[in-house]
Amino acid sequence: MPIIRVQTPSARYDVYAAAGLIDSLHPRIERLAGRLPRKVFVVTSSPIWALWAERFCASFAEQPVALFLDPGEKHKTMASVETLARQMARAGADRGSLLIAFGGGIVGDVGGFLAAVFMRGIPYVQAPTTLLAQVDSSVGGKTGVNLPEGKNLVGSFHHPLAVFADTQVLGTLPDRELRAGLMESIKAGIIRDRSLVRYMEEHAREILARDARALEKVIAASIRMKAAVVSRDERESGLRMILNFGHTLGHAIEQATHYGALLHGEAVGWGMIAALRIALKRGSITRAQAERLEELIHRYGPLPPLKVRAAKLASAAGGDKKNIGGVRRFVVPLGIGNAGVIEDVTQAELEDAARYMLAQARES
Amino acid sequence: MPIIRVQTPSARYDVYAAAGLIDSLHPRIERLAGRLPRKVFVVTSSPIWALWAERFCASFAEQPVALFLDPGEKHKTMASVETLARQMARAGADRGSLLIAFGGGIVGDVGGFLAAVFMRGIPYVQAPTTLLAQVDSSVGGKTGVNLPEGKNLVGSFHHPLAVFADTQVLGTLPDRELRAGLMESIKAGIIRDRSLVRYMEEHAREILARDARALEKVIAASIRMKAAVVSRDERESGLRMILNFGHTLGHAIEQATHYGALLHGEAVGWGMIAALRIALKRGSITRAQAERLEELIHRYGPLPPLKVRAAKLASAAGGDKKNIGGVRRFVVPLGIGNAGVIEDVTQAELEDAARYMLAQARES
Repeated sequence: MPIIRVQTPSARYDVYAAAGLIDSLHPRIERLAGRLPRKVFVVTSSPIWALWAERFCASFAEQPVALFLDPGEKHKTMASVETLARQMARAGADRGSLLIAFGGGIVGDVGGFLAAVFMRGIPYVQAPTTLLAQVDSSVGGKTGVNLPEGKNLVGSFHHPLAVFADTQVLGTLPDRELRAGLMESIKAGIIRDRSLVRYMEEHAREILARDARALEKVIAASIRMKAAVVSRDERESGLRMILNFGHTLGHAIEQATHYGALLHGEAVGWGMIAALRIALKRGSITRAQAERLEELIHRYGPLPPLKVRAAKLASAAGGDKKNIGGVRRFVVPLGIGNAGVIEDVTQAELEDAARYMLAQARES
Repeated sequence: MPIIRVQTPSARYDVYAAAGLIDSLHPRIERLAGRLPRKVFVVTSSPIWALWAERFCASFAEQPVALFLDPGEKHKTMASVETLARQMARAGADRGSLLIAFGGGIVGDVGGFLAAVFMRGIPYVQAPTTLLAQVDSSVGGKTGVNLPEGKNLVGSFHHPLAVFADTQVLGTLPDRELRAGLMESIKAGIIRDRSLVRYMEEHAREILARDARALEKVIAASIRMKAAVVSRDERESGLRMILNFGHTLGHAIEQATHYGALLHGEAVGWGMIAALRIALKRGSITRAQAERLEELIHRYGPLPPLKVRAAKLASAAGGDKKNIGGVRRFVVPLGIGNAGVIEDVTQAELEDAARYMLAQARES
């Protein structure tokens, strides 16, 4: 089983990726957290819980308390965190309680933030159930919720005790979510792992058909990339910023479509296409590289069509939270398998890139 | 000017206590945070801002953006944090922005929590304007808000860049708030500083008359105690717990009276009287010590009368968040100037202590 270590100045933990992990969560967590008289809370969504509760609970002597988050980005709010915190308080949670976030990226972000702020922080475990959450959002300690003004504007850095990515759980994942999650793997390859790019080019059919070996390979490589970057830059002061490749315009798209029309990975897919345009214009990649990567992204599509205005996207992207003191930072690939940050991207460049991307997004 | 260093594994900063500090906040902050192109936000309350805005703003070249929190414990909520975060986002705040919490304990707790979670954490400065906030809540990095289920159930540890306690600002503090704040100084003395207990016994008249020298002495000693404890135990795993002397039943009183009838310091005053009863019964203080300390507390009263049931207080105290894994922890003085934690306090002891305290609180 691939076990990938994350080691930052403030935390050290492992990401496990294998089939059937949810059958043995309790003994695994006990090995990490010790045998305290802990109450265990599971933040999850009812569709996930309906499918997996029985297997999930089988290894626990005392049944964990399940708390439900309604599905959808629109419930990734402060109000949801407050509701869940109140339920925990009423169920007798204390500082010795433990939380497990069992679900997709939204459950992980909200559950992790809840763990970060409940009684000023309790330990938690990530058990991601979507590909996107397994390869990206569950690793790295970023937690948070949205404001109407933008995505993830409120949150914490709070590392889990461990991440258990059960690849078997992906069996019930809708095809569209699988494809969306793979966009983050493509991102991982572009910014940091050429061989992953090549593998995804050469094995698209097996990966999309959920061949177990191919999928585990992609998942492990993606997590390895994320873990390495997070280990070197916990708080996004430098290197970690490259993880935002495709996310500046991706977030702008999600905001402009009110987080409803696209999955996060799909928005990142379009955001990468726009970012490749800026990279090409800046000369950080060649035309051949840009075309090759664009083709790879579309190979794992289809990305859904978009109806938004380029100027709107560009101005939303200008307010992105990666900006510090008014400087507009933007991640571009440097060739394939490497990336960097440019600090002087202009509104005109953002608009041109958005227009270029929208020309494809309106056709698709 | 007394400058007191706080040094924890995750932060190092100074607490300044002197008259007139708010006239020079901008250059002082620049010395700490550097000359970034930062936007500065001030979380405050309108009564405070009405009194001090002119002097506060005079040292800033670019005017800080003032954000207002309605006064009162009932606004120490997640909803307030969300409202303030949205205002910041709309005003163009980014990760390079800086926040100043300028107000009493509630402004400090809410403003600090806002800084902790806005874009996963921005730097902030505490500029406490009440005695309670100066001697206690602004130092130590604890931030948070209440839930209907209990006080401070949601929050973060987030240290400020510095604390500026301007003793001149206390000039406009209502007398009742001064007395309530002094309860935390009495607590500081009881758990850790015999000489502060003696000083407060011998100089009650000057202190209550706000003699500048006497007040500064009490403030500096209180901060010194808090800073020393926090420096040795940042996350309340051991020693820091003694700071909760008087707070277990104090919080229960606040909860039972819906955070409306008493100031926090007043509830702590009553809570200390109850805790002294448990300490006496356990033999951790003598009868003479208990009487002497009770007298000191009442000397800085009057504490307002209370109408609650002892059983209710005892059961609320049993759910206190200092409990871990169901163990009920309780802080008692060990003589005067020292304190410890007992882990097996019973419901009957809590009820007896509450009854003892209520016998005085009903008369008063």
